[in-house]
Amino acid sequence: MDSIVLASRSPRRKEILERLNIPYIAFDIDIDEKLTNVRNIKSSVMEVSKKKAAAGACHFSKGLVVGVDTVVYFNRKVLGKPENTGSAYKYIKMLSGNTHCVVSGITIRDTCGGNVYSACSLTEVSFIKMSDSEIKNYLAADEWKDKAGGYAIQGQAALYIKGILGSFYNVMGLPVEELYRLLKKFNYFESRGRYQPVNK
Amino acid sequence: MDSIVLASRSPRRKEILERLNIPYIAFDIDIDEKLTNVRNIKSSVMEVSKKKAAAGACHFSKGLVVGVDTVVYFNRKVLGKPENTGSAYKYIKMLSGNTHCVVSGITIRDTCGGNVYSACSLTEVSFIKMSDSEIKNYLAADEWKDKAGGYAIQGQAALYIKGILGSFYNVMGLPVEELYRLLKKFNYFESRGRYQPVNK
Repeated sequence: MDSIVLASRSPRRKEILERLNIPYIAFDIDIDEKLTNVRNIKSSVMEVSKKKAAAGACHFSKGLVVGVDTVVYFNRKVLGKPENTGSAYKYIKMLSGNTHCVVSGITIRDTCGGNVYSACSLTEVSFIKMSDSEIKNYLAADEWKDKAGGYAIQGQAALYIKGILGSFYNVMGLPVEELYRLLKKFNYFESRGRYQPVNK
Repeated sequence: MDSIVLASRSPRRKEILERLNIPYIAFDIDIDEKLTNVRNIKSSVMEVSKKKAAAGACHFSKGLVVGVDTVVYFNRKVLGKPENTGSAYKYIKMLSGNTHCVVSGITIRDTCGGNVYSACSLTEVSFIKMSDSEIKNYLAADEWKDKAGGYAIQGQAALYIKGILGSFYNVMGLPVEELYRLLKKFNYFESRGRYQPVNK
């Protein structure tokens, strides 16, 4: 079975691919992830995902390279990874009682044929209204570290999330339904013979 | 820290509680899970969750007992756990290209004070239109076994799910945001001192 190349160092993305039994090689690329236009967030994240796939593709002579960029977006602002507990507090306080968006761009590039397909996924995430002590308790777990927006939906933040509209895995950092749809465009599953998921 | 009693043998529910760092004892109860009224699915699943909590509470002199009942509901029918690949195929074929509901009732009963609180959670789940070979490939993984509706959102079915509206964990079998809300009614987190989530 052919591995895809994941141009990312995110442990969450790796975890998702493992769970789905899609073989991969993770390859860390170093590009400028700065969004060019936060007013058009969808095309901006797709742009960055294209750059990531292109940067990854330089290092391989064969195979499909996947670039993904995920941002947490609220009130026309992108919330990055908080630098310290203070910024994490501000982020969670902002998200509390509100609905924000998580937007991913995803691009797959065939290093041989040069074909490139991109897509994006948008999920709305609604937090309950959290008290100050709830926010502080949440932050005490350090789950906010290295997480865009300062939370992890797959972790203890789940307690404070009323519901979502869209893809759950997009919020984790990899919109798997879009990944699957794009891989089909490359006849990825046919070329592997039948898709052979494992029995978990 | 006090453990809650989970009146269930579901490995998914246990996995979720572990991920949230909520200590629990799982206790298998044997009750009639048959729904009394599928036209009012919300009150029916709450009813069953109450029975489960009550049945669990008989065995403990102290503590909070949690009963949960989750059903997959489509076209006014409850889809149970498929008995064989044939029924699993029928279920997935039915869900393919459509939106169905997953509904959980959850009840917490204090074995001492006798207080009981219930809630329910409803999530809409939308599948992409799957081809026959996609359905067969999915079923080949045996993921359908022991799963209501014949799929697991936390598994490879994620590839075929366009999006959801509501709680993801409800679809896995435990609406954690409702669990959290009900536990707060019992001052569970205060009685444990501060909520002490772990750093994962």
